[in-house]
Amino acid sequence: MSEKKRRAGAAAAGPASSSKKPRAAASYAESLRSKLRPDASILSTLRSFASASSSSKSKAATKLAADHDPSADPSSSYIVVADQDSASVTSRINRLVLAVARSILSGRGFSFAVPSRAASNQVYLPDLDRIVLVRRESARPFANVATARKATVTARVLSLVHGVLRRGIHVTKRDLFYTDVKLFGDQSQSDAVLDDVSCMLGCTRSSLHVVASEKGVVVGRLVFHDDGDRIDCTRMGVGGKAIPPNIDRVSGIESDALFILLVEKDAAFMRLAEDRFYNRFPCIILTAKGQPDVATRLFLRRLKVELKLPVLALVDSDPYGLKILSVYMCGSKNMSYDSANLTTPDIKWLGVRPSDLDKYRVPEQCRLPMTDHDIKVGKELLEEDFVKQNEGWVKELETMLRTRQKAEIQALSSFGFQYLSEVYLPLKLQQQDWI
Amino acid sequence: MSEKKRRAGAAAAGPASSSKKPRAAASYAESLRSKLRPDASILSTLRSFASASSSSKSKAATKLAADHDPSADPSSSYIVVADQDSASVTSRINRLVLAVARSILSGRGFSFAVPSRAASNQVYLPDLDRIVLVRRESARPFANVATARKATVTARVLSLVHGVLRRGIHVTKRDLFYTDVKLFGDQSQSDAVLDDVSCMLGCTRSSLHVVASEKGVVVGRLVFHDDGDRIDCTRMGVGGKAIPPNIDRVSGIESDALFILLVEKDAAFMRLAEDRFYNRFPCIILTAKGQPDVATRLFLRRLKVELKLPVLALVDSDPYGLKILSVYMCGSKNMSYDSANLTTPDIKWLGVRPSDLDKYRVPEQCRLPMTDHDIKVGKELLEEDFVKQNEGWVKELETMLRTRQKAEIQALSSFGFQYLSEVYLPLKLQQQDWI
Repeated sequence: MSEKKRRAGAAAAGPASSSKKPRAAASYAESLRSKLRPDASILSTLRSFASASSSSKSKAATKLAADHDPSADPSSSYIVVADQDSASVTSRINRLVLAVARSILSGRGFSFAVPSRAASNQVYLPDLDRIVLVRRESARPFANVATARKATVTARVLSLVHGVLRRGIHVTKRDLFYTDVKLFGDQSQSDAVLDDVSCMLGCTRSSLHVVASEKGVVVGRLVFHDDGDRIDCTRMGVGGKAIPPNIDRVSGIESDALFILLVEKDAAFMRLAEDRFYNRFPCIILTAKGQPDVATRLFLRRLKVELKLPVLALVDSDPYGLKILSVYMCGSKNMSYDSANLTTPDIKWLGVRPSDLDKYRVPEQCRLPMTDHDIKVGKELLEEDFVKQNEGWVKELETMLRTRQKAEIQALSSFGFQYLSEVYLPLKLQQQDWI
Repeated sequence: MSEKKRRAGAAAAGPASSSKKPRAAASYAESLRSKLRPDASILSTLRSFASASSSSKSKAATKLAADHDPSADPSSSYIVVADQDSASVTSRINRLVLAVARSILSGRGFSFAVPSRAASNQVYLPDLDRIVLVRRESARPFANVATARKATVTARVLSLVHGVLRRGIHVTKRDLFYTDVKLFGDQSQSDAVLDDVSCMLGCTRSSLHVVASEKGVVVGRLVFHDDGDRIDCTRMGVGGKAIPPNIDRVSGIESDALFILLVEKDAAFMRLAEDRFYNRFPCIILTAKGQPDVATRLFLRRLKVELKLPVLALVDSDPYGLKILSVYMCGSKNMSYDSANLTTPDIKWLGVRPSDLDKYRVPEQCRLPMTDHDIKVGKELLEEDFVKQNEGWVKELETMLRTRQKAEIQALSSFGFQYLSEVYLPLKLQQQDWI
């Protein structure tokens, strides 16, 4: 019975779900339920949206396709690293080491050419909608007091990465550091050189088999293979499947979803997973539980590239929520050289948007006053290119800064615990209310 | 091919794994590899250990069994809440509300009897090896300026919990708070009353269907059902299965493991998952990625109670690692009333122990000096009952404080990335080197 109830649970909002709050806001919130058209009608809206997204004519699709081409112009004035398989990375290391050996034999000495990753070298490209690294290399000779140590560290990291690839395993940055603490001194040094090596070889850090720890989870209409094991994300209960740290072990991605729902927080994820929202509206739901980690960003991008589905985001209505979107979409500055592989362009802001607070009559006491720091971050976001190019986002952010109010996704719980999955999201989808 | 390699990977340490470091420590570390007996011999050691653990004669097993009995003496002088099903919690709420109603009708007024959860009311019981709450109740009458608000909040939380149970869903503390921000004021108030309600009803917080967000993951020889979906943890790739936040939706736990390996950190978890350590030595591997969360603690306890397997812990060799063990074993003070359901007694400290640093000749540069704060925490731990009752732990902690050195699990990477899974852990298991 519980099985049946669960599977069918999301199909219709039963009578038990009508809350009996005396407040006007609550009764208005309930009245929105009656605005909902039958699911079949909402689904047909979503289907046309999904097929429009997958048509390769869209700007974003072209961009994704171009990014995915590892043979992208090497003489370009920007450094864009790409995912490479082990064989390719190994041969790149071999070639690099051969070049160094030749240089020594020809009397020109032992030296590496290392791309500069300085902040001044990072630019935002509106065409690509990403932060990238300008191509500018500096020599790192061994026969120089200033660079002798760093050249040694570089050689050691190259050798360690070569070993990891040969054995076909994956390690963390911390593991790498501990293999030679005496040389590296502290982890920030081996980490920095690892980023250098990634730029030098033109490979992503995950291609080097050095992975980050994961904290993201996924459920919904998605099947994939994690290290050879078939994972059916409709059968992952409420907990979901932990997103694997090594994206190159992910294969065989299949889905009948109409969109990807990117959720900022764990609590909303749990609500949607428990209500099996993805069975009512076929979708893939994922969350990084706050600030997105590298593994979750790589995973989202893979899904977007392979499935060509639209991505809708559900974040808190505060500057931090928008900041999280920006990390998914444009990357973070300290990994700009890898931005092509980490970013997912064209994420739609579904909610909770500042204008939703009035539109859905979120009670005053569920809204929070913005702190001075919030306001500062909000104003900075208004200056960011990725916000400026989307008029709708600018308006929303201005509304937020004018009202000086923010709200969490959970604020919708004031209309009932399942209001999010039963009314708010279905209505958003029906009205195609994303920007 | 990769499939075959992967599955068989852990079965034997291939020639590729012999590292060629010139250092003495490294060559000593390699020499330990030759001390390893065949896996069959180690497995037979583990089998007898596992069967000894599951025999109900052991003190810990009796303790677990007693804890698991929800009908445990209600007239006891300690408050110990228990897991209850929805029907039972609902009827407890009904009885409580009826009693209040009768009190009003008989002219004695509207009042709740609330157990005190003050720190002074929390004691460590050596017999139970847990922190528990002394039974001492105070009245919370509505007709009193000092308690009128709290009595109202209590009634509201009871009603919300009742609603959640009726709908068969799970919510977070944050959701609960947002249903009535005006009344609760801030979340700490609804959280505190939720804990009160848990004590009043004699039910765990998870029985109230108010769950914590999860961050733990599990892989290995374990099959269970998460909300009706069958999860085979040998087929969860490298990422593992996210531990579900709602333990009452977990059922059908089955396993052919010989032990549970509790890992402090994500990086070590990833290494063991990638090497499929559990296929070489049948075990269940889980981690909370640092400080244990409630969901992971509940899950570990459920595994221990149902499977009666020994639990071996792999933590950093520092006071914080031991502190984490103490949370799994004895609970944290602010949830002492729930300690019976959250704690797992009799966890063995496998490593990395302070004595291992010399025993395994971990290079000096991979050890870290303890900070003043570390030393302070270490000295405090020496005074804790759960440490004092285990002579071996006292000795290890004294060694740590004397040498003033600590080390992370990753320090073992200095002998090769797979040293942990190929030499260190197998040798530990072979030598039954846990305390």
